[in-house]
Amino acid sequence: MSDGINKVVLAYSGGLDTSVILKWLEDTYNCEVVTFTADIGQGEEVEPARAKAEAMGIKEIYIEDLREEFARDYVFPMFRANAIYEGEYLLGTSIARPLIAKRLIEIARETGADAISHGATGKGNDQVRFELGAYALMPDVKVIAPWREWDLLSREKLMNYAAEHGIEVDFAKQSGKSPYSMDANLLHISYEGDLLEDPWNEPEEEMWRWSVSPEAAPDEPTYLELTYEKGDIVAINGEAMSAATVMETLNRIGGENGVGRDDIVENRYVGMKSRGCYETPAGTIMLKAHRAMESLTLDREAAHLKDEMMPRYAKMVYNGYWWSPEREMLQAAIDQTQQVVNGVVRVKLYKGNVIVAGRKSESDSLFDESIATFEDDAGAYDQKDAAGFIKLNALRLRVAAKRRK
Amino acid sequence: MSDGINKVVLAYSGGLDTSVILKWLEDTYNCEVVTFTADIGQGEEVEPARAKAEAMGIKEIYIEDLREEFARDYVFPMFRANAIYEGEYLLGTSIARPLIAKRLIEIARETGADAISHGATGKGNDQVRFELGAYALMPDVKVIAPWREWDLLSREKLMNYAAEHGIEVDFAKQSGKSPYSMDANLLHISYEGDLLEDPWNEPEEEMWRWSVSPEAAPDEPTYLELTYEKGDIVAINGEAMSAATVMETLNRIGGENGVGRDDIVENRYVGMKSRGCYETPAGTIMLKAHRAMESLTLDREAAHLKDEMMPRYAKMVYNGYWWSPEREMLQAAIDQTQQVVNGVVRVKLYKGNVIVAGRKSESDSLFDESIATFEDDAGAYDQKDAAGFIKLNALRLRVAAKRRK
Amino acid sequence: MSDGINKVVLAYSGGLDTSVILKWLEDTYNCEVVTFTADIGQGEEVEPARAKAEAMGIKEIYIEDLREEFARDYVFPMFRANAIYEGEYLLGTSIARPLIAKRLIEIARETGADAISHGATGKGNDQVRFELGAYALMPDVKVIAPWREWDLLSREKLMNYAAEHGIEVDFAKQSGKSPYSMDANLLHISYEGDLLEDPWNEPEEEMWRWSVSPEAAPDEPTYLELTYEKGDIVAINGEAMSAATVMETLNRIGGENGVGRDDIVENRYVGMKSRGCYETPAGTIMLKAHRAMESLTLDREAAHLKDEMMPRYAKMVYNGYWWSPEREMLQAAIDQTQQVVNGVVRVKLYKGNVIVAGRKSESDSLFDESIATFEDDAGAYDQKDAAGFIKLNALRLRVAAKRRK
Amino acid sequence: MSDGINKVVLAYSGGLDTSVILKWLEDTYNCEVVTFTADIGQGEEVEPARAKAEAMGIKEIYIEDLREEFARDYVFPMFRANAIYEGEYLLGTSIARPLIAKRLIEIARETGADAISHGATGKGNDQVRFELGAYALMPDVKVIAPWREWDLLSREKLMNYAAEHGIEVDFAKQSGKSPYSMDANLLHISYEGDLLEDPWNEPEEEMWRWSVSPEAAPDEPTYLELTYEKGDIVAINGEAMSAATVMETLNRIGGENGVGRDDIVENRYVGMKSRGCYETPAGTIMLKAHRAMESLTLDREAAHLKDEMMPRYAKMVYNGYWWSPEREMLQAAIDQTQQVVNGVVRVKLYKGNVIVAGRKSESDSLFDESIATFEDDAGAYDQKDAAGFIKLNALRLRVAAKRRK
Repeated sequence: MSDGINKVVLAYSGGLDTSVILKWLEDTYNCEVVTFTADIGQGEEVEPARAKAEAMGIKEIYIEDLREEFARDYVFPMFRANAIYEGEYLLGTSIARPLIAKRLIEIARETGADAISHGATGKGNDQVRFELGAYALMPDVKVIAPWREWDLLSREKLMNYAAEHGIEVDFAKQSGKSPYSMDANLLHISYEGDLLEDPWNEPEEEMWRWSVSPEAAPDEPTYLELTYEKGDIVAINGEAMSAATVMETLNRIGGENGVGRDDIVENRYVGMKSRGCYETPAGTIMLKAHRAMESLTLDREAAHLKDEMMPRYAKMVYNGYWWSPEREMLQAAIDQTQQVVNGVVRVKLYKGNVIVAGRKSESDSLFDESIATFEDDAGAYDQKDAAGFIKLNALRLRVAAKRRK
Repeated sequence: MSDGINKVVLAYSGGLDTSVILKWLEDTYNCEVVTFTADIGQGEEVEPARAKAEAMGIKEIYIEDLREEFARDYVFPMFRANAIYEGEYLLGTSIARPLIAKRLIEIARETGADAISHGATGKGNDQVRFELGAYALMPDVKVIAPWREWDLLSREKLMNYAAEHGIEVDFAKQSGKSPYSMDANLLHISYEGDLLEDPWNEPEEEMWRWSVSPEAAPDEPTYLELTYEKGDIVAINGEAMSAATVMETLNRIGGENGVGRDDIVENRYVGMKSRGCYETPAGTIMLKAHRAMESLTLDREAAHLKDEMMPRYAKMVYNGYWWSPEREMLQAAIDQTQQVVNGVVRVKLYKGNVIVAGRKSESDSLFDESIATFEDDAGAYDQKDAAGFIKLNALRLRVAAKRRK
Repeated sequence: MSDGINKVVLAYSGGLDTSVILKWLEDTYNCEVVTFTADIGQGEEVEPARAKAEAMGIKEIYIEDLREEFARDYVFPMFRANAIYEGEYLLGTSIARPLIAKRLIEIARETGADAISHGATGKGNDQVRFELGAYALMPDVKVIAPWREWDLLSREKLMNYAAEHGIEVDFAKQSGKSPYSMDANLLHISYEGDLLEDPWNEPEEEMWRWSVSPEAAPDEPTYLELTYEKGDIVAINGEAMSAATVMETLNRIGGENGVGRDDIVENRYVGMKSRGCYETPAGTIMLKAHRAMESLTLDREAAHLKDEMMPRYAKMVYNGYWWSPEREMLQAAIDQTQQVVNGVVRVKLYKGNVIVAGRKSESDSLFDESIATFEDDAGAYDQKDAAGFIKLNALRLRVAAKRRK
Repeated sequence: MSDGINKVVLAYSGGLDTSVILKWLEDTYNCEVVTFTADIGQGEEVEPARAKAEAMGIKEIYIEDLREEFARDYVFPMFRANAIYEGEYLLGTSIARPLIAKRLIEIARETGADAISHGATGKGNDQVRFELGAYALMPDVKVIAPWREWDLLSREKLMNYAAEHGIEVDFAKQSGKSPYSMDANLLHISYEGDLLEDPWNEPEEEMWRWSVSPEAAPDEPTYLELTYEKGDIVAINGEAMSAATVMETLNRIGGENGVGRDDIVENRYVGMKSRGCYETPAGTIMLKAHRAMESLTLDREAAHLKDEMMPRYAKMVYNGYWWSPEREMLQAAIDQTQQVVNGVVRVKLYKGNVIVAGRKSESDSLFDESIATFEDDAGAYDQKDAAGFIKLNALRLRVAAKRRK
């Protein structure tokens, strides 16, 4: 089973699963393996992956800090769209996959590899996201998804394989391991499996890692001022900061205030429903604040069009079509609207709540007190215009009503 | 200025404004006035309006309790759509107007009136909602909107008019009056004007009437079990109740837990942005819970179509097109999906948060643990299928990538 | 390779391919085969399939005339939606598959079969349409698609297999066979392959079978009056007729007038572009006439919503999702609008052109000459209303323009 | 009735109506008038308007040839969207108004005018299109729409006014005048009124001005090769030409072949249905050919998104929202897709038919014969992938089917 594969770039975390995959790839395909490990804000050291890869004899080892690129070129553009999947999910896992796919392919080109490999299972969305991205960027690449090929489908078999092949398993870590399947990056940490497999079960408090419970959050609210430029946050409380720093800051402060937990049943692209819990402190704040900034600065019809496009956009990202003409097409429309989304939003965080406490825009506010006021507006708006407006809008309804008689 | 008007049905609250309108209609149009006062859950007695109308010499007085009809035939169908306007507003005022318009027209037919009148201003959405509804149901009706016609545009002039015409003003009530323009019904209470006219201002705590602040809410959470049949809540904690009772119950419990406050800048149909604050305790719980019930029971693609249709549906309701072919068309599609939305959702209310703590459906759950599980699924799902799924979905992207080279 | 299959219902045409499939199924799966042959208007006798199946030892043979059901329950509902795929294709093949799938499954239930089989290839859309339908109606059915399994991928191998297994091939017919891959039913006949594989080639005149060329059509036009009830044609030139008869009549008259040819490059669901030529005489007339009937009777906003939904609806049918919640959801919305689509459309057919020559509706016309006239309208419409209408619609644009300064 | 208006820019055709308007503006508003007359391809000389304006004492006279700008910056971008209103109308009148509005405003700025005026009636769409454009570009401009203000509502009164005020009426022209209300530019000529006011009437042959009837067209077809760059036609039969020349050429050749007549009932923005006939030879060819070019070069999902957006885009243009954020937003998405719409389309024109006879693209074709072929594809496509593709797409339908049991 060689398929003529000479070199594979593997998305390598340094953990048990991808270490087994590394060995399995070498044995099964008789090929060279290049490892790629990225810091996208998952909150774990990536350098230890180097020693592990070296110990397994890997010569080409890529370890990279992609946090800024991830926040700036993936998360922020997505938040310009106010993207939410199925009314609840902020797409934390989905948005990280296109970047990983892109780097896998770039490294394949650099190293002359003809295949990529990943540790995503055959039941999930991530395999789709990795592979659609890879194929879109390098159409003849070969993709090896060991979980769809091998027979190591239980943890016991996997451990045995590791033992047989001399793969060192960090037992200390394994034994303290969460019973949940988790994924983390700057935007969120997710939990699936175990008790969550019954959607009637409430998650245990000890499951959550990034946030305190609303009950445990401080009794005093925290206020933040978020400065927007072209739809992106560029400063917090007046202090300019990079995209990744914005997210790290909001994750920390949000988490301290019990903000950003979600617990949903979602529809996977591969066809089944699944239960997931998510902690997305920064994202929860960003969505609320971005909508508030737009509410002041965006034209009504542009805003409504964005709202109608949003579910499609979110579905594209969820399903793995970041690298697609249709996503780029919607992004062009969305970004076109964000030139005027400038100003400041003040939010209040309190025990799980994100409350908009003010919004202003010196340059781009479309809110005109002189028109909206309940007091005399000095002729800025002629109330009599409304009669004609209503009459013409009603005309088709009136003609139809007459017909019905 | 008679326009041949003989009898007018007036939406009459019993307050100063509509009392002045009543008198002004008689004087200006030399016509008979029929008053119509409805209890739609605004939390104020409606019977006092009878005495006031009688005191002003009115002979045909309609006073009605429409709470059940409002909840059952307007609010509940709208929540089947998960309707939110501009990502935030639960359409509390909007959804009450079509019912008022319908009753005004029915009473006009019963009493042989040829016109209707209302107290909505020329700058707002409500005039549009009342009048589009009226024209759609009785195409030749005449509509009198005094605020667009008269010159009593300040409160002082209005008071003087009342004094001159012997209209008794309930000064006790007036003097304690809120500085905000408010509207209330079973679904919400709204606040506009005064300090809110600057969107940078945070609302004062004393403004809110239906809910305690999250800070003031109990330190212990409240759990509720909501039973759904065909998309509607039919029982709370196992106790069957009518639509209006569901809403009253959820308003009370939600309000006690600080649930349902919102503070937004919205785009009015008449063209300007306006700032509004809303308390919608029941609605906030209902939206969250309905989505959770659907997440378990609704097909993915039906759910996504609903999400894409929703902004249009919400806009129709906001703009006053309840009585329109396009709203009925979308409602037909939405209701068609709700046959399977049956089951129970468990929610946790805590200091402003509405947290889904469980969902189940004996009859209609599409969640299949045997497929979604991370453990061995005994062949319920063949992971190898995913390879073909991805390959064919990627085909167009690969062909395009090859072309680009 | 038994997979425990005992009995298979085969969509059987009586031709070479499905005769080979029949034999191959028996040999490969050691199972009993039930044949199903349907007349859906393809213009070939279906009875000969009986003798062929009998000659091959088949005991359970289903031969059915499904033309009325096809026209009434599939084609007509689809035309209520004005469905066109990618601006050109009238979905002739797509709409027949759900009916075949449904009957295959019903026969499987009647005969106790546990599998179905069809002769569609692995590159096309039809396999998807058959199988999605089958799975939606009988979720545990097994589907055997020989073209995806066997190695008889060239015509020569197929002929050899037939010879070896004593399958009588109708050589007279085979030798005169068109070089094109064709599919026909009441709605259309399609052509693919051979010269058409280069999209720069113009089709040869001799390829077309149902219509004369515009050049060869009569020099005199033909006028038809089509009577609509609830969006469906129920009479031609005043003569009431069934759905299938409507289609047969329009196919004949349309074809005589050179109407209904189309030549396109389309996007298949399985990911590639393909070139197809189609003759759809009845469908071409029906689409044009239905739009004309709606133009007179349908409300503007309902019509626009239909137009916006249409591409989604067409895509669902094309991709094989007839038996899906999302198609049923859109159908509910569409059918809801068709109550008023009643009246008569007069069309002129001339050398390939379908020209609307008149439309009227006694009961449901929304066209009001007294309003639309360029002459004095006696007050039916107050031109001054337009000023207010424009002013309020312009308000948001004016506010934005002021900001830009 | 001065409203403080000092100078008005009038869209002036030189005909009776706008000459009366000119005089009426001077008399009614005691203001100076600037005339603006544009050649947008209406097929009439514009220079004669100069002498007429001079004769009426006008000092600032603008006469401009805007054909290239119109074709390049308005018509061509709209055709990139494949825009059709209500399935039939190619928006010929609609697309000319934004350009006129823009020039009126630019001239107002140049000449220091504070108002603009036009000759559109209060029942039509054009008033809306002119005025929305004007307000969007110069928010404080005053707009004078005489047809909504004056009492010259019959032709007789208008003639009398002309006679009284010494306005020379070109009686020769008037007497030979068509009974239809017409509008023409590079994209179309339209007809409304008179016999057309009954939608059951077929138009008279003598009404049409730009095209021969299909019956009268040549018995031999005409073939054309249209070269596309980024979605726009840049050459015909290999000869490079400007946008306006493309349209003039296609209008001439199309008209000679009986191409481009349409006869519809449409829904006006101001609320009523109206009957219109249109001749759009170039546009009819351009729409068909552009779709054919896209069919070869555009990604499937981008094409489908365009199809779903199109009705909204067309509605925006029809309703007069060219100069709006929402139109610009959609245009950004559309233009983004057109980078690859390069190649050649061959069309055959014959007695009213526009038939695509071939399409090719050296650089950007996504049609891959090696994949789509019915012959052996040498492994370019693995038919077995289809099984997994179908299985996963069917999964949700199967789970639902099981639940129903």
